[in-house]
Amino acid sequence: MAVVHRVMEFVLLALALVSKVTGLNPTFWWPTFPDGGAYCLSWRLAVEANNLRAWRTVPPQCLFYVEKYMTEGQYEKDLNLVIDQIRTYVNQIVPSDDSLDAWILDIDDTCISNVGYYKEKKYGCDPYDPVGFRTWALKGACPAIRSVLGLFRDLIGRGFKVILITGRDEQTLGRATLDNLQTQGFVGYEQLIMRTEAKKLVAEGYRIWGNVGDQWSDLQGEVSGNRTFKLPNPMYYVP
Amino acid sequence: MAVVHRVMEFVLLALALVSKVTGLNPTFWWPTFPDGGAYCLSWRLAVEANNLRAWRTVPPQCLFYVEKYMTEGQYEKDLNLVIDQIRTYVNQIVPSDDSLDAWILDIDDTCISNVGYYKEKKYGCDPYDPVGFRTWALKGACPAIRSVLGLFRDLIGRGFKVILITGRDEQTLGRATLDNLQTQGFVGYEQLIMRTEAKKLVAEGYRIWGNVGDQWSDLQGEVSGNRTFKLPNPMYYVP
Repeated sequence: MAVVHRVMEFVLLALALVSKVTGLNPTFWWPTFPDGGAYCLSWRLAVEANNLRAWRTVPPQCLFYVEKYMTEGQYEKDLNLVIDQIRTYVNQIVPSDDSLDAWILDIDDTCISNVGYYKEKKYGCDPYDPVGFRTWALKGACPAIRSVLGLFRDLIGRGFKVILITGRDEQTLGRATLDNLQTQGFVGYEQLIMRTEAKKLVAEGYRIWGNVGDQWSDLQGEVSGNRTFKLPNPMYYVP
Repeated sequence: MAVVHRVMEFVLLALALVSKVTGLNPTFWWPTFPDGGAYCLSWRLAVEANNLRAWRTVPPQCLFYVEKYMTEGQYEKDLNLVIDQIRTYVNQIVPSDDSLDAWILDIDDTCISNVGYYKEKKYGCDPYDPVGFRTWALKGACPAIRSVLGLFRDLIGRGFKVILITGRDEQTLGRATLDNLQTQGFVGYEQLIMRTEAKKLVAEGYRIWGNVGDQWSDLQGEVSGNRTFKLPNPMYYVP
């Protein structure tokens, strides 16, 4: 049996090589990791289920794993399944005519993507770099996350007031963020506010039906909404 | 390139066959599923992140996936990583000497396992069967989840009052549950209470440091504790 195991290991290695050379990679779950990615998958699951908190960097042994996850399709699949769930939920809501039916969307890695930036930061294996992030955000060049843009438009079309909430600093990044959102098609939202001001929304009488973010801190707190949806993000943690 | 792809598909098929015949399966993430398990992985992630709610059964196309997940190691790996996180957190707490430092553990699929029962229910692909579950639970034969039993003992050793909370019906399953826990080594806990009575704990002055359960409904609500930990369970959903 040990021989069979060895042969299989060899074939797997050969396949990994073929995959590398040809660029063909039929599935993300190729056993190209020491333990088939099992540890990094456990790690990622713990992040998404809010079991791992206040982590500063992606474990170095998961660099290749998270890179593949973010760039080879599984991230998008995970994201799209959540968007499908949101649509199912949204379709059950009948907004009333008082214009107070609201929906909250986070901005970074919810509406627009920072994967391009994190690519240069070893997909989160490098520590947080506030200056570097500000430089990136000032470019106003974060691309829309397509499926969230579709959801955004549908929500507005169905009569929801869409409220964007961000932890970005208004003073330094306000203008760039507004421009970035507009360029990427996020047009027609009700307001863009800083997270700290979020509690005003409830005072203003909004019924917050949903809250979508890539960080649990987006979803927990005084204004969490009737339902929360956690988008995947294994690259960084915001307390 | 199409030829290379075909050849790779063939080799993968051959490998899957070898793996089936020899029983050797170096990693859970073998591409033995139509899409490499990508959909079922997205589904499972959505379940664990509380994005999918009120689902009644595992999608039929994920039967084989969930079976492999539960029985071939990844479930245990995911679970153990959470237990590691709990220990890290517990080690930072200095219990005071007023005997009010408390910790909540759910029972089903947290302290003791129902995987043996769900094996007969197609790992959750069959709908919930209250009579069948009662018959199973009355046997009092659910095995301990080893890593949780270890945590349970450590918590007690460190001076925490461990409180077990269950949604099981006291009238019909009370005796069998007590016996089951004792047989499996869960000895020395403070009390075993029904979930609906949980709010009494806060009135009694306990500081609830942690709350561990396999269902989000265990962790959310009036008594959630200072930190919550979600153990994996892709087999069923409890509202």
